[in-house]
Amino acid sequence: MVNQYHEDLLKKTEQQRHNTEVFFKKLRDRLCLIFEEIEDKSGHLYKDDKPGKFIQKKWKRLGGGGGLTSIMSGRVFEKVGVHISTVYGDSPKNVTSDENSKILNGKFWATGISVIAHPKNPHIPAVHFNTRMVMTDKYWFGGGADLTPVLEIRRTQEDQDTIEFHEAMEKSCHKHKIADYGKFKKWCDEYFYLKHRNEIRGVGGIFFDNLCSNNIDSDFLFIKSVGNNLIDVYPKIVFNNYEKEWTEENREEQLIRRGRYVEFNLLYDRGTKFGLSTGGNVESILSSLPPIVKWP
Amino acid sequence: MVNQYHEDLLKKTEQQRHNTEVFFKKLRDRLCLIFEEIEDKSGHLYKDDKPGKFIQKKWKRLGGGGGLTSIMSGRVFEKVGVHISTVYGDSPKNVTSDENSKILNGKFWATGISVIAHPKNPHIPAVHFNTRMVMTDKYWFGGGADLTPVLEIRRTQEDQDTIEFHEAMEKSCHKHKIADYGKFKKWCDEYFYLKHRNEIRGVGGIFFDNLCSNNIDSDFLFIKSVGNNLIDVYPKIVFNNYEKEWTEENREEQLIRRGRYVEFNLLYDRGTKFGLSTGGNVESILSSLPPIVKWP
Repeated sequence: MVNQYHEDLLKKTEQQRHNTEVFFKKLRDRLCLIFEEIEDKSGHLYKDDKPGKFIQKKWKRLGGGGGLTSIMSGRVFEKVGVHISTVYGDSPKNVTSDENSKILNGKFWATGISVIAHPKNPHIPAVHFNTRMVMTDKYWFGGGADLTPVLEIRRTQEDQDTIEFHEAMEKSCHKHKIADYGKFKKWCDEYFYLKHRNEIRGVGGIFFDNLCSNNIDSDFLFIKSVGNNLIDVYPKIVFNNYEKEWTEENREEQLIRRGRYVEFNLLYDRGTKFGLSTGGNVESILSSLPPIVKWP
Repeated sequence: MVNQYHEDLLKKTEQQRHNTEVFFKKLRDRLCLIFEEIEDKSGHLYKDDKPGKFIQKKWKRLGGGGGLTSIMSGRVFEKVGVHISTVYGDSPKNVTSDENSKILNGKFWATGISVIAHPKNPHIPAVHFNTRMVMTDKYWFGGGADLTPVLEIRRTQEDQDTIEFHEAMEKSCHKHKIADYGKFKKWCDEYFYLKHRNEIRGVGGIFFDNLCSNNIDSDFLFIKSVGNNLIDVYPKIVFNNYEKEWTEENREEQLIRRGRYVEFNLLYDRGTKFGLSTGGNVESILSSLPPIVKWP
């Protein structure tokens, strides 16, 4: 089935789509470099463990496109994945990534980046970030970033990490017409919520979808801003905490808290469900799951 | 809303419902006793660990009824849950436990038992079992039992454990008109299947739902038979394996394989989804999740 609106949109936005892909790739490179530098600099903390190095794997999508997974099992970052993909083809039927942004029967094109880091030290919060550009017969951007401290005592809105993260996300929305920080923050709190436990997953951040002001260039500036602010704030939060000593009890609490992360991702996360049900790359989708988890 | 069919059915089946509840409770007692005996007898294998003891907790359901969880963290059984519940009230709206057995808008009553054991020794397979009796304006039985060896080398149809388990399940169907072993075995293979990984969860067993021959007593004999055969075969399988030595590699493989168990239960399992979305007891529903899991 040829969808003329879609074909026209793809042609018209060729340069912008290319720029978005390039930005995501460079962001991936910058993030991986920073994470590896942190690994290298932590020799005084983990004398017996070698610094981690990212391992990259290409994958192809049956229906069209593919991506590249970058996964590291390190000493500061027990597991971290930084993935990019560009996929296209026939829109999956009967599946929508969002009830508000139904993917039409027809063709789609999408490019995105996703990051999830599970540090070993229970004082360092886990972080999740992703942004994407989607085209059917219209375009939109979606994504977000949120922080998950794993120790109860650090899971507060008054914690320094939480404050810094929120400030960075607020800053990322600054001066961008399309970005309503208050709305995106609330959306994040509502989205990352475990109904069955009556618990939020982390301490929040921002979440957004269906962003389309009909000015791609302007909307894209916001998407860049989220990525740039994330890459600015998370390493700071890591450095704030990575020399802190932890106890067996802290580690146990972390492993149990990680179980909630798994529960959220498998029970509720739209991206996970969407990816798995549309033949996405299992390795990159489920690389969000923490390396070791306990349900005692 | 009064549903006269439902009220009449409940009255008419009072003795049979009572008998089912009593059978499930006695089965729970027998299972817990056997599991604790195995713990007690394993002192020569786990000198540093104490034998596990079941801890029981009552819970009440907001809409009516409740249950009792029995959970043990032991040395042979790293985590095992044996739960019974009897719940009733208004049928959950927009939720069905099975597309073939729509719970009608109206009242329901249900009683059930569920068992899940995650042994520590990677040579001992995990087991899952549950049976239930449900009444809306008709009655039906559902349930099943399936075995999950965690070492690739033991996950075959030729393995002695697999053979013994299948024999026991076939025997449980023997001479019961309502029980079509071939159908139930196939149903189990189809149900415990991880689409996104193109993998079966374990090595199979039986799975059934909507069983109703309009002779409750006769159908109940089959349900009893499944429970009695499970209690007969699983301890044998434990004893076949529990003295086998295992390596670090075996343990690692077990922890990774357990991840598939989590993926299945949270992504696909109807009981889990049904329970969590209808305000069931989170502790008993998610007690199926293994004690330690790895996604390296």
